[in-house]
Amino acid sequence: MEALDKQDPQPQQGSLAFFTFLVLVIQCVGLTAVILVAVWMGHYRGGFDWGPDNPSKEFNYHPVFMVIGMIFLYSDAILAYRVFRNVKKTYSKVVHGAIHIGALLFSAVGLKAVFDSHNYAKPPIPNLYSLHSWLGLAAVILYGIQWLSGFVAFAFPSLSLGAKKLYMPHHVFWGVAILCLATGAALMGITEKALFTNCFTKNFHYSALPSEGLVINFLGVAIVVLVALVIYVVTRPEYKRQPSPDEEHIQLVG
Amino acid sequence: MEALDKQDPQPQQGSLAFFTFLVLVIQCVGLTAVILVAVWMGHYRGGFDWGPDNPSKEFNYHPVFMVIGMIFLYSDAILAYRVFRNVKKTYSKVVHGAIHIGALLFSAVGLKAVFDSHNYAKPPIPNLYSLHSWLGLAAVILYGIQWLSGFVAFAFPSLSLGAKKLYMPHHVFWGVAILCLATGAALMGITEKALFTNCFTKNFHYSALPSEGLVINFLGVAIVVLVALVIYVVTRPEYKRQPSPDEEHIQLVG
Repeated sequence: MEALDKQDPQPQQGSLAFFTFLVLVIQCVGLTAVILVAVWMGHYRGGFDWGPDNPSKEFNYHPVFMVIGMIFLYSDAILAYRVFRNVKKTYSKVVHGAIHIGALLFSAVGLKAVFDSHNYAKPPIPNLYSLHSWLGLAAVILYGIQWLSGFVAFAFPSLSLGAKKLYMPHHVFWGVAILCLATGAALMGITEKALFTNCFTKNFHYSALPSEGLVINFLGVAIVVLVALVIYVVTRPEYKRQPSPDEEHIQLVG
Repeated sequence: MEALDKQDPQPQQGSLAFFTFLVLVIQCVGLTAVILVAVWMGHYRGGFDWGPDNPSKEFNYHPVFMVIGMIFLYSDAILAYRVFRNVKKTYSKVVHGAIHIGALLFSAVGLKAVFDSHNYAKPPIPNLYSLHSWLGLAAVILYGIQWLSGFVAFAFPSLSLGAKKLYMPHHVFWGVAILCLATGAALMGITEKALFTNCFTKNFHYSALPSEGLVINFLGVAIVVLVALVIYVVTRPEYKRQPSPDEEHIQLVG
């Protein structure tokens, strides 16, 4: 197939070693974020339950599933092309799309958990009034649209090579932008949960920075470091996946 | 002087018109954000005062000055090279650096306001315990380091052309990354102030979404739209400032 752009310079051996190091750091920081949010909800906030009998424990699934879906899996899906750099492009495309499906499923269940927990509460808590809820829902909806657009454009029925080339920079920009929006929503969600706990329970005084406060803050720090590293890796031209000479290739950076 | 990279294609007339439109939208959205935060603090939260007699009114300077400094002026400073595309590069460099100094000054006074308001409160409120304060302070410190590094590298004493070329992508990456971090900190700060007001005053019920709640949410939406547009404009290669044939030029995108 036709190669659309000039061949990029191959990355140096040293720079690929640093790339591998960065990807490992990203996995560690991502797992740390998932563990921290699970410890916060599971240990400090009473654990998990599903259904109308215990809405506050159903709520606890919300932060955990959103961090797994909209932050950690989303990040790994973005990285798929660069990590699977030596396999056929079709395979890395399938991995990219499949991890994103996983991310969307976790996010959907995470959203169901927070709506349920509001509706089951006595009295019920209104939905969608806070800035966190507005921007968080916008992030998930945009993410769903992005997945569908990407599937239609690049998988089935798939656009012409020229149209793919025109769409690709927008797919990349929106992919990174929605990850940033999800990160902002996550940071607001963490702040909301910390402050509501501070205001309405007797066993947490945020300003004294007890162990739960440190878990909360390092969760936020881990999410920010994770997303910053992911965006660094995907915007550095030397870490771009190199096309094999016989495959079609669409330039990522304009 | 030597031109380091190949000449980029000139932007189309139509795309420059769209660029001008985007810059005008950015100014309108930025001013809207500044007005909304000023109305929130000035009208709904009791207005402004400076000094130990009224710490809660000194606090009110904090959100306003941080939005002006770390969001609106920061954004305009980033845009300076693209907006002043037809003047000598030295002039746009001076504008870029000068707006950033203004942004840093507003941020410094905004930080002084929040520390004062905590220290003057009776009893004093601990400083730097929340995730907002950690990430917000990190953003301001990184921003100061970025300004100094940029000044040393590009203004005085200034690096060699080759070293500038190596440093430039990092200057750009960190400039955008710190703006994103500042945006995350702003969204958390908005959430904190909204929830503390909800918890500790009788005249604001966030979940009923009164007019103050709408001001709060649209402030957050305006900040997100502003920053997304700024990053879109500065990452689109067709809006890059074109070097005059006789000036040194450092490629922004690797």
